[in-house]
Amino acid sequence: MSFNTFGRVFRFTTWGESHGPALGAVVDGCPPGIALSEADIQPFLDKRRPGTSKYTTQRQEPDQVRILSGVFEGRTTGTPISLMIENVDQRSKDYGDVAKAYRPGHADFTYDAKYGFRDYRGGGRSSARETAARVAAGAVARAAIPEVEITAYVSEIGGDRIDRDNFEFSQIDQNPFFCPDEAAAKRWEKLVDDARKSGSSLGAVVECVASGVPAGWGAPVYAKLDSELAAAMMSINAVKGVEIGAGFDAARLSGEENADRMRPAMEGSNHPEFLANNAGGIAGGISTGQPVICRVAFKPTSSILTPVETITRDGQATDIVTKGRHDPCVGIRGAPVVAAMMALVLADQKLLHRAQCG
Amino acid sequence: MSFNTFGRVFRFTTWGESHGPALGAVVDGCPPGIALSEADIQPFLDKRRPGTSKYTTQRQEPDQVRILSGVFEGRTTGTPISLMIENVDQRSKDYGDVAKAYRPGHADFTYDAKYGFRDYRGGGRSSARETAARVAAGAVARAAIPEVEITAYVSEIGGDRIDRDNFEFSQIDQNPFFCPDEAAAKRWEKLVDDARKSGSSLGAVVECVASGVPAGWGAPVYAKLDSELAAAMMSINAVKGVEIGAGFDAARLSGEENADRMRPAMEGSNHPEFLANNAGGIAGGISTGQPVICRVAFKPTSSILTPVETITRDGQATDIVTKGRHDPCVGIRGAPVVAAMMALVLADQKLLHRAQCG
Amino acid sequence: MSFNTFGRVFRFTTWGESHGPALGAVVDGCPPGIALSEADIQPFLDKRRPGTSKYTTQRQEPDQVRILSGVFEGRTTGTPISLMIENVDQRSKDYGDVAKAYRPGHADFTYDAKYGFRDYRGGGRSSARETAARVAAGAVARAAIPEVEITAYVSEIGGDRIDRDNFEFSQIDQNPFFCPDEAAAKRWEKLVDDARKSGSSLGAVVECVASGVPAGWGAPVYAKLDSELAAAMMSINAVKGVEIGAGFDAARLSGEENADRMRPAMEGSNHPEFLANNAGGIAGGISTGQPVICRVAFKPTSSILTPVETITRDGQATDIVTKGRHDPCVGIRGAPVVAAMMALVLADQKLLHRAQCG
Amino acid sequence: MSFNTFGRVFRFTTWGESHGPALGAVVDGCPPGIALSEADIQPFLDKRRPGTSKYTTQRQEPDQVRILSGVFEGRTTGTPISLMIENVDQRSKDYGDVAKAYRPGHADFTYDAKYGFRDYRGGGRSSARETAARVAAGAVARAAIPEVEITAYVSEIGGDRIDRDNFEFSQIDQNPFFCPDEAAAKRWEKLVDDARKSGSSLGAVVECVASGVPAGWGAPVYAKLDSELAAAMMSINAVKGVEIGAGFDAARLSGEENADRMRPAMEGSNHPEFLANNAGGIAGGISTGQPVICRVAFKPTSSILTPVETITRDGQATDIVTKGRHDPCVGIRGAPVVAAMMALVLADQKLLHRAQCG
Repeated sequence: MSFNTFGRVFRFTTWGESHGPALGAVVDGCPPGIALSEADIQPFLDKRRPGTSKYTTQRQEPDQVRILSGVFEGRTTGTPISLMIENVDQRSKDYGDVAKAYRPGHADFTYDAKYGFRDYRGGGRSSARETAARVAAGAVARAAIPEVEITAYVSEIGGDRIDRDNFEFSQIDQNPFFCPDEAAAKRWEKLVDDARKSGSSLGAVVECVASGVPAGWGAPVYAKLDSELAAAMMSINAVKGVEIGAGFDAARLSGEENADRMRPAMEGSNHPEFLANNAGGIAGGISTGQPVICRVAFKPTSSILTPVETITRDGQATDIVTKGRHDPCVGIRGAPVVAAMMALVLADQKLLHRAQCG
Repeated sequence: MSFNTFGRVFRFTTWGESHGPALGAVVDGCPPGIALSEADIQPFLDKRRPGTSKYTTQRQEPDQVRILSGVFEGRTTGTPISLMIENVDQRSKDYGDVAKAYRPGHADFTYDAKYGFRDYRGGGRSSARETAARVAAGAVARAAIPEVEITAYVSEIGGDRIDRDNFEFSQIDQNPFFCPDEAAAKRWEKLVDDARKSGSSLGAVVECVASGVPAGWGAPVYAKLDSELAAAMMSINAVKGVEIGAGFDAARLSGEENADRMRPAMEGSNHPEFLANNAGGIAGGISTGQPVICRVAFKPTSSILTPVETITRDGQATDIVTKGRHDPCVGIRGAPVVAAMMALVLADQKLLHRAQCG
Repeated sequence: MSFNTFGRVFRFTTWGESHGPALGAVVDGCPPGIALSEADIQPFLDKRRPGTSKYTTQRQEPDQVRILSGVFEGRTTGTPISLMIENVDQRSKDYGDVAKAYRPGHADFTYDAKYGFRDYRGGGRSSARETAARVAAGAVARAAIPEVEITAYVSEIGGDRIDRDNFEFSQIDQNPFFCPDEAAAKRWEKLVDDARKSGSSLGAVVECVASGVPAGWGAPVYAKLDSELAAAMMSINAVKGVEIGAGFDAARLSGEENADRMRPAMEGSNHPEFLANNAGGIAGGISTGQPVICRVAFKPTSSILTPVETITRDGQATDIVTKGRHDPCVGIRGAPVVAAMMALVLADQKLLHRAQCG
Repeated sequence: MSFNTFGRVFRFTTWGESHGPALGAVVDGCPPGIALSEADIQPFLDKRRPGTSKYTTQRQEPDQVRILSGVFEGRTTGTPISLMIENVDQRSKDYGDVAKAYRPGHADFTYDAKYGFRDYRGGGRSSARETAARVAAGAVARAAIPEVEITAYVSEIGGDRIDRDNFEFSQIDQNPFFCPDEAAAKRWEKLVDDARKSGSSLGAVVECVASGVPAGWGAPVYAKLDSELAAAMMSINAVKGVEIGAGFDAARLSGEENADRMRPAMEGSNHPEFLANNAGGIAGGISTGQPVICRVAFKPTSSILTPVETITRDGQATDIVTKGRHDPCVGIRGAPVVAAMMALVLADQKLLHRAQCG
């Protein structure tokens, strides 16, 4: 089933394909009276925009957003906010190969298996261009949760991790990798460039921290804050894993090691002090008031220049090479998308909490 | 917000607390005409049932399920199926400590932060007893997807992993750990027993494989099969991470290594042959026809005998010890729950696929 | 599709059949901290209970409700509230006729057409006994909207209407017809008794007034307060029409006649004075602060003693007579159900308003 | 709450205001492979288009629809279909009166009460221009249910009803009132013109018939076909009442009169013959295979030239006159909207039935 809507009361719906005239999002349920203009959204799109360095695809898309509804005299009205981004650089090219055969790792085979045919131009709906619409919607969500600060960064590329001792938030916007470790960013320049030159690709891990989330957002069972985050993150193209807090490492700790001990609130605070955050800011599906932390694994871009064994639509053996403009490491531009999804989940949970608990 | 319902068209709602009179599930949207009786559900509950070995909690619950509606003359009618399990062994005890202070790692603090008060008896709604209702609902889901075979097993306890070379599906039901590696199961006996005796606890990783899923189930964007699985698994108590296929390891592979090459269908098959399954049976959110594989990280049980620094409801410093009957490793009994959630997600996706694609 | 859940954030799910062991509702999303006990719910069920006068079915059901979850120490916890009512008087009888042939006006033919078979005992899921579960859920909803007072009454039976000049709210609970007009209630005694004796049946119109609803509940488009009420009311067994405010009569008024003129708030009020209420308390899908008024048409009970031309399951011509215990006018016991649905819609809208507008 | 989405699996979301740059709809869940182009949608928009006769508003809007996504090589792909209609004739005018005071019958007061402020230009989101997006979405829905034929017509204006003996389907498109009775259409010319000239307005009743709906679409309880239709119709601007089949008249029939007797299928048919259709094609919430019939009451346009007593935003007494371009009878252009909503509900129910019953 299609289901291109996410969220329960702060909801958004995206539409659009890689090579259609435009793509967009409709944000529904945003509280009224929030200051919002295209200038509030554009900076987030600019972060995700392709063609800004040699480490990302060379497709040139200005990704200019237009607000078509839901804002009046600079403020949200409470009615649906329609956001549209025109596609500009749908380079004319020969799609014969992709139309006729399946690229391993891409959705070519599965779309055909499901729908019987597919829009093969640039991956159609399965293209990561869809995430531009999420980033635009995420900017609206951020405006709805001014109490929260969200930062996403790349903590690992091709197995090369950042050094936590070198972690500097201020570094994240200083390099093309959203990398908080200056030294790692230097190393990644060569790593990613080598992959790009050889027509190969690399995976990455993106980490996201939301601070300022008050204790109490979330729910006990199927709308748990962590469950919603997992759904949100796993819905991003190329994502294969999601962790909250200590994640898989928590499975290797003892109960004593894993317990986030608590102390009375320090002077000037009305929130208990936690001595650790293995929980990633979530216990029993509900926020603890600590930073909410999640980690997201991106597989290497499936588009590579090495010929790969595959089959045609008719089931014949063939080889395929994915030419064209691609990110050597999709995880990099994944960082702003992860941040957007975090904002969208939190805005929804804020409103849900308010619904039930006043 | 509460949201105790999961699923889009094959949906289930659970209710009940650890120490209430009963707990249950309402399964809505099940196709009509499926043979179903209590005897079809009970074996799955028996797997998850507490008190069956010294490696699980000693709470004695028969977990007998009753079907209260939706089945007539042995077949589902298409109307809601109400399942109820009575709580029997709500041992009377003094909850003074838990009522007054917050157990780190548990949902005590967050429930109070959200709702203002909580049912502190045995964790109330945050107790893993809720998962009995999921397992019952999951048994109904299995009946709705007879083409699929689902197996869940524990692949790691306390950092000690199974050896893939020793993997035997037939072993899984031969030991109290749902362990497919006979040698690992032997090692875990001591490992878990030591944790139990010392009042400590261990984490675990559960793996789940669904074979027989045809290509085409799932959706391109926010109802992706992997996104739904992530939400389902992360909603289970104590889960902190979810992976599909190669998961986080995929982030460390090159594009060439990660590509699941395809070959024409072998004789007698109408499905292409894949040379690997790093994708875990899902590409672009849609099943490929290969086994669907996911991996789930359980943190160590938060209930431990070691005194832990914490605060009271009034914000005063204190220590807490969690006495009583607990699983030394909740991940073990997590295996049947993971399998149930896999079944519930797949039943929903089967119906959704049929809705859109006929 | 089954979809036995209603509501968006204050949601309830019902289950159960006429002749199963029990029926019930799960209320999800109720705010925490609300005083609630079985004694708060029972009086509403008693109003709807069968067998209380000769004007209703003689089936004897105590309709005793049990709260199985979601309440702790007399207050709602914010987790799902499971309500169960056991069926007691499923009189053993020969269902041969109903099993083999279709009763016109009943759901026999359509259930078979949809599901391939059906639970024919007392109508199975299509029985109006399902509405007992709604009434129980509605009692919880009322507890969540203490600011609102809801009254439902029968305004017409078999075409005989109440006289608005005789309208007395205090009369409603003084007669077996929930009739606010003492004289009409007298007339209806003979009318309904005649129908009962002759094995015929009568239709009715139920009106419902909710006062105390503040201005601002509702939504502009597909979650309009009136749209939600229409869905709620039309989902009740035997209902064929729904009106808000002046309803169909509004279609016969001029714009001048229909306009509900406004004046400044009177002293001591913070709400504008409206000079009429043709809108039924709703404009643009949002409450105006005036009483919310809806009117619901119930068809005559389809169970009648006159032989009616029909067909068997095999498609052969036959006649059918519906013996057994039936309400001669289902609309009468429809009044408490209409009130319950009003409460459930308003509780949901209250929470939704709070979600978006704080 | 906003909730601008309708439907369960065939879903659509609308956005846009009267005086914004554009409005549109996103249709999600449409089956793949259906032939669809702008030319398939435009004729339905043309029927609803303003400015086509002196009996409708003189606002000139070409209402040209653009398909922005979800269609490839002339066929639906199964991904979201984005439809956009630009607003052209947002005549610049002085909104001072409307900005400062509340027009009775309009949503001015309630939007302010809910959201704290509003887009007052042409009614903003509460404008019936939103229904253009529904009509566009409805055209997609029709393509998904080729087995069904839907016709909507006006059966009554200002209390003047059509004569059923003069009913001719072929007349409906021959006059500016969608009137199936030639004589009534003649009478309405003067009736509506008089209202227009005097600055008054009239209500109307629209009837809609869907033939070709197979037996079995719908659901037993809260997703009943009639319940969904009631929600759909009551969500249309200015609607105050909805009836299915005999509707309120059913409340005045005896059980014998109301029963739709059945006979064996006639030769060449595989569907039983019904001797009447008081049920309007729906029993127990599920389609019977007879035509589905509903009736919808539109109040008179709230915009009238007569000064009406009201209050300002500041709560001061004033009079207001609604100048500008308005339909003297909004019910007329309501007919294509009612038909669109019927199509949207039926497409959803078709898919839901397929989901559960294969």
